Amino acid sequence: MASNLDIVDDADGFPYEDPKSQGLYLFRVAGLSTTLGYVLPSVSRLLSDFPGWHVDQEEQTIVLESGQTVEERSAAIRKTILAMCEKECFSILRGWRDETFPVFGPDHEVVLHIERCACPLFGVVTYGVHIIAYTPAPADGDMMKIWVSRRARSKQTFGGMLDSTAAGGVASGETPWNTVLHECDEEASLPPDLVRRDAKSVGAITNFYVRDQRSGGEVGLLQPECQYVYELPVPLDLVCKPNDNEVESFELLAVSEIMAALSRREFKPNSGLVMLDFLIRHGVVTSENEKDYLNIITRLHRPLDFPLR
Amino acid sequence: MASNLDIVDDADGFPYEDPKSQGLYLFRVAGLSTTLGYVLPSVSRLLSDFPGWHVDQEEQTIVLESGQTVEERSAAIRKTILAMCEKECFSILRGWRDETFPVFGPDHEVVLHIERCACPLFGVVTYGVHIIAYTPAPADGDMMKIWVSRRARSKQTFGGMLDSTAAGGVASGETPWNTVLHECDEEASLPPDLVRRDAKSVGAITNFYVRDQRSGGEVGLLQPECQYVYELPVPLDLVCKPNDNEVESFELLAVSEIMAALSRREFKPNSGLVMLDFLIRHGVVTSENEKDYLNIITRLHRPLDFPLR
Repeated sequence: MASNLDIVDDADGFPYEDPKSQGLYLFRVAGLSTTLGYVLPSVSRLLSDFPGWHVDQEEQTIVLESGQTVEERSAAIRKTILAMCEKECFSILRGWRDETFPVFGPDHEVVLHIERCACPLFGVVTYGVHIIAYTPAPADGDMMKIWVSRRARSKQTFGGMLDSTAAGGVASGETPWNTVLHECDEEASLPPDLVRRDAKSVGAITNFYVRDQRSGGEVGLLQPECQYVYELPVPLDLVCKPNDNEVESFELLAVSEIMAALSRREFKPNSGLVMLDFLIRHGVVTSENEKDYLNIITRLHRPLDFPLR
Repeated sequence: MASNLDIVDDADGFPYEDPKSQGLYLFRVAGLSTTLGYVLPSVSRLLSDFPGWHVDQEEQTIVLESGQTVEERSAAIRKTILAMCEKECFSILRGWRDETFPVFGPDHEVVLHIERCACPLFGVVTYGVHIIAYTPAPADGDMMKIWVSRRARSKQTFGGMLDSTAAGGVASGETPWNTVLHECDEEASLPPDLVRRDAKSVGAITNFYVRDQRSGGEVGLLQPECQYVYELPVPLDLVCKPNDNEVESFELLAVSEIMAALSRREFKPNSGLVMLDFLIRHGVVTSENEKDYLNIITRLHRPLDFPLR
C-alpha cells in the first residue's frame, strides 16, 4: 500500500540537487542566458551531431544556435526532431502529434515551440489543466463524491490508469481556461454552459517527473510539469460520459474509494497529485491524519528552476 | 502599489541560496546531524561565549552540546536565553512570553522546545494557524466577503496592521486544530460550536521571513514559518468581535477591498500570504489575471530545508 508521500515520489522523482552534479546538460538558446530544460548526456551527445547545436562540455550546456526569433528557433528544433524521427533515435518520438507546446523565457515570453512528444528530450516545462467535477455533500449527511475517468487502455501513455474528470495539455496559442472548456466537452461531455458558469480556478501544482515504464518511451527522460487545477461542483443527476476514444469510462467515487485507489497506485502519477491536492483543499487529508502533511504540500508546489509561463 | 509578487517578497525575503555561502551558521544539537535552523554570524559569536555551545568555524555549525533528551536540551537552551536576557544582548528578548515552541527532527519527533520570542535567534521553523471566516456569495449575485482583523496598535509585532480573522502560534504540546478552537474564541469571539462544525482544514503555506522594522527587535533575524490554513464559512448575521486586547477591531471586507489593502501593504506579511492563497483557492486570483501566478503559488509553498512538524 503506497503512502501519500509515495504517491508524491512517484510523480516527483527528480532529486532536489544541482542538475550539473547529476551529469545533466543545461538546454539554452543562443542570446539568452536562462536555462530552459535539462538534457540527459545520451541525448546531448546525439543532438551535438545535428547542425545548429553546440555542446560545451565544460559548462555542461547544450545550446540551440540556429534562429533568432520564435519562428526560426521553432523551425530549427522541429527540423532536428524530424531528423531524429527519421533515424529512429527515440521510441518516444513515435508519439508524434503535430501539436506543439510553448517554452517560456524570464519575462513570460514564448522563446520557442516544441513538438509535444519531444518535450521530455529537452527537459522543458510543460503545462496542463486538470478539472475535478464533484457532487458536493448533500444536507442529508452523505459525503461528496468525485467523477474519475479511466484512461483508454489503447493510450500510448498511462493506458488504463485512473485520471481526473478531464485534463489536457495547454498547447501553443491556447490559454488554460480555453483548454478547460475544450477538454470538459471533449473528454467528459460536460455541458459547456455549466463549465463556463461553475468551473473555478483553485490553484496549480508543480512536479518534476522522471519518466518510467508507465509513461512509455525511453526511461529516465525528464519532465518538469505545471498543472492548473480547476474544480466543478455538479448536480447529483449529471453523468460524465466519454466523448472521444481517450477515455474508457467514468466512475463517481466516494472519498474513501479515491484514497484506496491512490494507495493502490491506480492513478496516473500527476493526476494522483491533483487528487491529493483536492483532498487537502477539502479537509479530507489534514495535519491530524497525515504525518507528512507539510512535506506533501511543499512537494506538490515544488519550485522549478526554469522560467514559468 | 505593491504587486502580488511584492507581497510574497515581503514575507519571503530569504534568498534561495546555500545558507553557508550567505555566511550563516547551521544550528544543530549534539548527536543529530540534521540542521534545525540558521544563525547569523553575530548571534553565533555571542552564543559561543555561553557554556554548552560549540562553534565550528570550518563547518559553519553552532552546536548545542548540553543535553541528551528533549528536557535537557530545552533546559540548556532556556538557560542560555535567560543569560542573554540578563545581559540585554537582544531587544527581541524583551518579548519574553514564557511560552515555548517545539523544534522537530527528521522523524517528526520533538528535539527541543525554545522560548517563543527567541526562535528567530536560532532561525528555527515556527508553526501557526490562520483562520479565514467569510460569508459565501449569496444567490442574489452579491460577492463573498471576508472578516479581517486589525491588530492592536499596542502589539509588539506588526501593531495596527491587518490580519486574518484569527491566528496564533502552535505552542508546545498543542495541535493545529486545538489552536484553531482556542484562537477563534479568544481573538474573534466565534461560537465554538460553529467553529467545531464548519471550520475546514484547506492546506498550509510556508515562507522564510527575514525580520525587518515592522516586526520589531533586531533586523535581519531569520524566521522560517509554516501556517496551517483553515476556512470558516459564516452566516451573514454573524459578527466577529474582539475578545482580548490583541485585536483592535474587525471589518467585513469585499474581495476588491482585500486586494486594495494588500497592494497598500496593510496586511501583516505572512497574513498577506494567507490572503493571497485564499484568493487563489477561490478563483479570484487566476492565471488569466495574474502574470506571476505560477511563481506566486510555488513561493507560497516554499520548501524549507529543515525537518518539518
